[in-house]
This record gives sequence, structure tokens and C-alpha cells, in this order.
Amino acid sequence: MKWAYILRAIGVLMLCTGCTMLLPLGFAFYYHDGSQPALLLSLAIVVLVGGLLALSKPARTEFIGHREGMAIVTLGWVGVGLLGALPFYFGGTFTSFGDCVFESISGFTTTGASVLTDIESVPPGLLMWRSLTHWLGGMGIIVLSLAILPFLGVGGMQLYKAEVPSPMPDKLKPRIRDTAMILWKVYVMFSGIETVLLLFGGMDLFDALCHTFGTMATGGFSTKNLSVAYYQSAYIDVVITVFMLIAGVNFTLHYLALTGRPSALWRDPEWRFFAGLVVIFTLLCSVSVYGERYPSFLQALRFSAFQVASIITTTGFATADYELWAPLPQAILLFCMFIGASAGSTGGGMKCLRIMLLLKHSHQELYRLIHPHAVTRVRFGVNLVSNEVMSGVWGFFVLYLGLFTISSLLLAAVGVDVVTAFSAVAAAIGNIGPGLGAVGPTDNYAHLPMVAKAILTFCMLLGRLEIYTVIVLLVPEYWRR
Amino acid sequence: MKWAYILRAIGVLMLCTGCTMLLPLGFAFYYHDGSQPALLLSLAIVVLVGGLLALSKPARTEFIGHREGMAIVTLGWVGVGLLGALPFYFGGTFTSFGDCVFESISGFTTTGASVLTDIESVPPGLLMWRSLTHWLGGMGIIVLSLAILPFLGVGGMQLYKAEVPSPMPDKLKPRIRDTAMILWKVYVMFSGIETVLLLFGGMDLFDALCHTFGTMATGGFSTKNLSVAYYQSAYIDVVITVFMLIAGVNFTLHYLALTGRPSALWRDPEWRFFAGLVVIFTLLCSVSVYGERYPSFLQALRFSAFQVASIITTTGFATADYELWAPLPQAILLFCMFIGASAGSTGGGMKCLRIMLLLKHSHQELYRLIHPHAVTRVRFGVNLVSNEVMSGVWGFFVLYLGLFTISSLLLAAVGVDVVTAFSAVAAAIGNIGPGLGAVGPTDNYAHLPMVAKAILTFCMLLGRLEIYTVIVLLVPEYWRR
Repeated sequence: MKWAYILRAIGVLMLCTGCTMLLPLGFAFYYHDGSQPALLLSLAIVVLVGGLLALSKPARTEFIGHREGMAIVTLGWVGVGLLGALPFYFGGTFTSFGDCVFESISGFTTTGASVLTDIESVPPGLLMWRSLTHWLGGMGIIVLSLAILPFLGVGGMQLYKAEVPSPMPDKLKPRIRDTAMILWKVYVMFSGIETVLLLFGGMDLFDALCHTFGTMATGGFSTKNLSVAYYQSAYIDVVITVFMLIAGVNFTLHYLALTGRPSALWRDPEWRFFAGLVVIFTLLCSVSVYGERYPSFLQALRFSAFQVASIITTTGFATADYELWAPLPQAILLFCMFIGASAGSTGGGMKCLRIMLLLKHSHQELYRLIHPHAVTRVRFGVNLVSNEVMSGVWGFFVLYLGLFTISSLLLAAVGVDVVTAFSAVAAAIGNIGPGLGAVGPTDNYAHLPMVAKAILTFCMLLGRLEIYTVIVLLVPEYWRR
Repeated sequence: MKWAYILRAIGVLMLCTGCTMLLPLGFAFYYHDGSQPALLLSLAIVVLVGGLLALSKPARTEFIGHREGMAIVTLGWVGVGLLGALPFYFGGTFTSFGDCVFESISGFTTTGASVLTDIESVPPGLLMWRSLTHWLGGMGIIVLSLAILPFLGVGGMQLYKAEVPSPMPDKLKPRIRDTAMILWKVYVMFSGIETVLLLFGGMDLFDALCHTFGTMATGGFSTKNLSVAYYQSAYIDVVITVFMLIAGVNFTLHYLALTGRPSALWRDPEWRFFAGLVVIFTLLCSVSVYGERYPSFLQALRFSAFQVASIITTTGFATADYELWAPLPQAILLFCMFIGASAGSTGGGMKCLRIMLLLKHSHQELYRLIHPHAVTRVRFGVNLVSNEVMSGVWGFFVLYLGLFTISSLLLAAVGVDVVTAFSAVAAAIGNIGPGLGAVGPTDNYAHLPMVAKAILTFCMLLGRLEIYTVIVLLVPEYWRR
């Protein structure tokens, strides 16, 4: 294991994170909200730790491999998540450091599950930091899913290998940097547009930025106790719905569309699948809640579209308490939690890509029963899917469900009721935020026992880092050699 | 499609089923319970329809292939299920024929979900027929899973191909007959022993037979409203627990053990997995309900073992209302519904064999991330598992979960609440019987809307015939050529 390289990479990551603390610090000074010392102290610690780690000098010729890549990703996320808890701790937002870590990891994994019971009583500086963790996490995810995971061969993401234009498969660095820069530009641009649109809708800069961070990262932290429902504005609902959906699409497609190839969207089978699901689910929900809960169909459509977009993109913003809806929309939203957004987006869940490949495989198995001697392969668009990719997708699916099972059992074992346990784990591992039962859209996670919070924190990391990247570090075999 | 052969096979099946109606008829005459006309009329119709179908003459040289095999299995089960509803209809047990079909299919698929609200008010003759449908269904399953499916290449069951000793892969008949005879002897022997043991426990012959039928077929129909809880007998609980577990084991292993090779059990990885799960889950449940619900640990063990055995073998007998238990045992029982018993047993669910292969594959994927260039294959015991088998298992898993999803959404769409919808579908497709919510162990399915019952009836058939066998008949491609 090339520890010098790993530590240096994590150190640089921390230094960058530290710099971004200047933004909440600016708001803290502007609002004189009393959170300045907490943020300053945190910034100092983050920069110090990051700086020390960044001092480690790897040999110039070292190229990192699979093992180092996975260690950087997982340990980096955990490290930044731990240091990100400091402002909440020094600011006195929570009395226990465990709660601070839960909130921070929930932010960086773009989950949006909160242990805050009264959001509006927290100083703006800290709320800005809380939302910023989402946005930074979202940046990390884009790079992870479109540049790092394809190389690591994790969970079938190799499918995207072909799309990154470079002929050097063993040198991760240049490719990651180029890809990251291109995609980050798209991310920043969309964030800018959404902020401006929200300002037009009557939000102040602070709220507009925080909600943009929550949207583009498909995170879901709001600055209001009622989440987006606070604004009671159809305009804001529509803007956020549209940008949640944008955030749920593969950013490579956005890049292609923005650089003059908009047909790339339509030609991508995953985009069609995702868009189709959103349209069908929204219509089904609308028809189901129309009349019963909303007098006009347009209103039913507005709230249904928001909730479907929020859950399938795994954002978790709320404009309605879906636990009061009819059984069908509830069941649809529950399944959306597992499906998730597109691969290469900031969204979580299993991802439409994988669901599609699994369904295509089943269809092929049926075909093989009818034509036992036919040789068939799963296709994705114009490409044949390799056995390696399918194998990765299968493994991911089973690990996802297996870890969901074990975690739910553990939560039930510490006394959490069955519906809450299952939906909390589904919401954590899918990086959604709200679940059902005692962790529904109008509740939060504060009342759970600390050990349950610890399990859920682990689930958030698992889900966000596509399971394998975390689990592999727990295999003794990984550390040998 | 060789229709003459298919119709003849189904006709013979119906004739055999008709003959077995003599048993309930005997009890009806013995008890003078008034169900004689209903049973006699049903017998006449079954024999008539079966006889007419059996008249169709296939060419002597015809051998049946994959397509015919699947048609016989599915259409045979549906046909016998429909005719099996007649005694309930003529006997006035239900006013709607739909309810009669639900009860009959639930019997033949060994599910045990009931729409009877007062079991004890039904004449013994009809109750005997109701339990007998279980036992006949169980006979069918053993042959299906150990002789027919391996040849059809359905859902990874090819793994058992090697165990059937014949060199002629295209001639299904002699092999099926030989295998069936051997395994049926085992089935009948165990049924005899259980009946005698239950007689010793104080049951009369009628109750002993009915409960034996429910146990050995992992069905779950009882003759009492309270199910097995009625007897309040530790002895009866233990006997039924043991025989449920016996019924949940691959019958090939029983045959080997009974013919002097008891080590076959221990050498079989699936048996070890199944036994391990039963022991671990029983202990976890016992610890969890001990003190809280049962004053002595032995009592906690008795009720936990019964409930774990009942759900994991997908029988569905009840001695306790597990919905009142703590979250952990509830969650464990919910997962047992999906796991199910061993392949080649009379139990349902996904089967331990498939769960094992899925987990082994995930483990291998993790290994491959650490050693990217290693060539590995999944092993089952001493055998390497072929890609064909893995592919079948994967397809089965996704179809199972996919159909579970769609059926739950359909149930929610007709207004069934989410917990009831999900657990009812899980209980139907896993051939278990009781679920949670409004279809819990102390409730029944009578109150559901008829369309929900129709969906659940279809789910029972899907689950029992290992999904593929049913679904393939719905693919237009299957009927062409």
C-alpha cells in the first residue's frame, strides 16, 4: 500500500474543504450570528490536519492502483466527514459529537437525513456549512462515478470506461483531472442558474444558495423546518423540481448536450428509462392524489412531480407529507427509494442503469428458455454488455440488498420498529433522507438511539461509495500482500 | 406445440386428483356432514373432464420438449386448481366462485392463505379436501423441482441435473417416473410417521391427517380457527416443528439418508446453510421474546422455533401472534419469507440454494476487486457452478423481486394499505400464507377486494412454479414457431 500517496491525496482534499469554509464564515460575519469562532476554529483544525497530511511525499514515479484508489475514496470521505462535524460541535448545535458526525456525513454523502430538531434556531453560518457539505459531496460523487469507479471496476461502472477519452488505463491522475474539470463546470453552471432563478422567486441569497446546494447535490438539507413547503410557492416548487431532475441525470450527457449534442440525451437508454419512470410515476401519483387531497389536477401534478423527483433523485426535499397519501403513491415512492437516479449523476440508490441491466438480463433468460440453444448477450444501447460488467452489477445488487437486510435487522435489534427500521436503512443506503414511520418526511432522526445513528451513518457511506469501495476495506485479504 | 400430449398429461393429472377425492368423501360419509353431494358432484366433473382430456392420443414416438414441459406444468396446476375449487362451490363454503378458486389454488400451491372466516363451521369432508390439496400440491412440487425443472433449465435448478441417474437427456418420461416414485415413497413415509405421532398427541385421525398434510406440504391450512395454537400442547408444537423442518429439506437428501447415507445431509452446503439459519434465527428470536413475552426460556424457545420453522419453510402455521413480538423477531420472520426453504423440498420462497449462490457471487466480486486478474468461479460444495446456472439464478432473483414490486403496486392501486400489500404479496409469491398488517397470523384474506385476491392467486402460482414456468407462457414468442 502506497500510504504516502494516499495520505497526501486525503490531505489535499482536506485543504480544499477547509478553503470552502470561508463561504459560511463570510455569511457568519455578515449576519453576526455568533458562529464565527466555531467556524474559524474548525477551519484552523482542518487546514492544520490537511496540511500535515499533504506534507507526506510520495515518490515521483508512483502511479496509484486499484487498492490505493479505493482507500483514498473511502478514507477521504470519512476523514472529511469527521472534520466537517467540527463546526457543529464547536457551535454547540448538538451536545454529542456523534450527532455532529451524523449530520456531517449525511451532508457529504448528499443524504440529507437530519438530527436537527429545530433548524431555524441554528446560526446561518452553520446552516450554510451544512448545505455546503452537500454541494462538496456532490462534486465528489460526479468525479467518483464518472472518473474513478469505472477504472476501479466497481459495480458495473466499467460501462462508462469507454466514454472517457484517454489511452492510458494505468495512469489515473490526468484522466481524473480532465474529466473532473469538465463536469465541475457543468455542475457550477447549473448551480449558478438555479440560484438566480430562486432569487427571482423571492428567496434571499442565503436561502437560494443553501437550497441550490441541496438540489444540485440531490442532498435535501433545507434552512427551514418545513423544508421547501415553507415557501408555499408554485414557482419555487417548479424550479426545484426541474433542477432535482437535472441533478439526477448523468453529467456526461449534460456536457454533451451543452456542447451542441442535445440528441445525446435521447440516445442514452438510461436517460429514456429515467425520464419514462419520472413521467409515469408522476402521472400515477397525480391521478391518485387528485380529488382526494388536492382539488385541482394542476396542484396534484405539482406536488406529485415534486415528491417523485425528490425521492427518485434521492434528494429528500418535502412539500407534502406523503405518508398521508393513498397506498399507491406511497408504494411508488418507496420503490423510487430503491431505484434511484442515473449513474453519473449526484443521485443515489441502485441507479437506473443497474436496474435496466438486471431487467434486460431477466428478459434474456426468458428468451433462452424458449430458444435453449441461442447465444444471446445483454445490450445497452448500441453496445454489448460484457460479462464483467454484468457480474459487477449482480454483485452490487446482492450486496446492496444484503447490507440493507443486515442493517435493518441491527436497527430492529436495538428496538426500532420494523417500518421505521426498514425505511430508515433504505433512506440511508440510498442517500435519500426521509423514510417512513418515525423517520417520515415530517420527522427527523434525532430520537433514534446513538447506535442506530452509527449504523445509519455507515449505511450512508456504503450507499454513497457504491458499496464495494467501502466493503473491500473490511476484507482482511485487501490489506495483505 | 404437441397439444395432444399436453392435454393427455393434464387429463391423467386430473383423473388422479379425482381419485383422491374418495378420501374426503369417506370422511364426509363417516361424519354425515352434508358435504357428500358436493364432493360426489365435483368428483364426477373432475373425472369427466380429466377422462375426456386423457382420451387425446399423441403419436407413439413423440418426446416432449422444453415448451411442452412448461405448458403441462403450468396449465396442469391451473386446471387442477380450478377443478379443486368445485367442492367448496357446491358445498356453499363461499358464495363467490372466485373465493373458491383462491382457496383451492392456495391449497395446491401449498401457500395456505385462506379466505375462510370461520374454519370450524365448514363440514369435515370439505376441510379434508382443503388440506388434501396441500398434500397433492406438495407431491407435485417434489417432482417439479427435482425432476422436471432441472431439465427445463429453469432458474438455476440445472444444478440438480447431475443427481438424477439417467443418460438420456431428451426423454423426460422414464426419468421423471423413477425419480418421482422414489421421492414420493419418502414423502408418504414421513407423512405416515407424523400422523401417528400426532395421534399419540391426542388428535383424532381427521385432525392428525389434515395437519400432517399441511405440514409435509409446507402448506399451513389448519382445521381450527386458532391454527395449531388451538391445541396448547408442547408435544404437538414440537412434532409439527420437526416435521416442518423435515419438509423444508431437499427430499433427495432424505432419500440418501434413509438408504444408509446420512452423511449426505451434512455434506450438502445448502442443508448446512438452511440448518444454520434456523438455529441462529431461533436463538435470536428466543432471546428477544424471553422475559418480555414468555416467562421461561424453554417456552420462548418453543414458540420461536415453531414460528421460525413455520415461516422459513413457508408453512404458515401459527402458535403465536408474531405481530405482537419485538421488532427484531418481526424483522427476522419478514426476511425468512423471502429466503424460504431448500430447493427440492416442498417449501417455497427464493430457496436457500439461490441465496447462497448469490452471496457467493458477491463475495467473488469483492475478491476480484482485490485481485483484478484472478480467474475465479463460484463453487457449490465440490462442484464448480456453471455460468448457465448462475445466469438462471440471477434472472430468477430479479424476476422474483420485479414481480413482487409490480404486484405490490397493483394491490396498493386497488386501495390495500402499504404494509398489507407488500406482506400479502410476499406471503403469496413465497407460498407462505400469513403476512403482516391486515393479513397477519390472526387475520385472513377474506376482506380484500376480489381483484386483489386475483392478483394474489396469480402470485401464488408464479412463486410455486418458480416464476419462469408461468411467465414464459405469457411471452408471445413462446407460442410462435
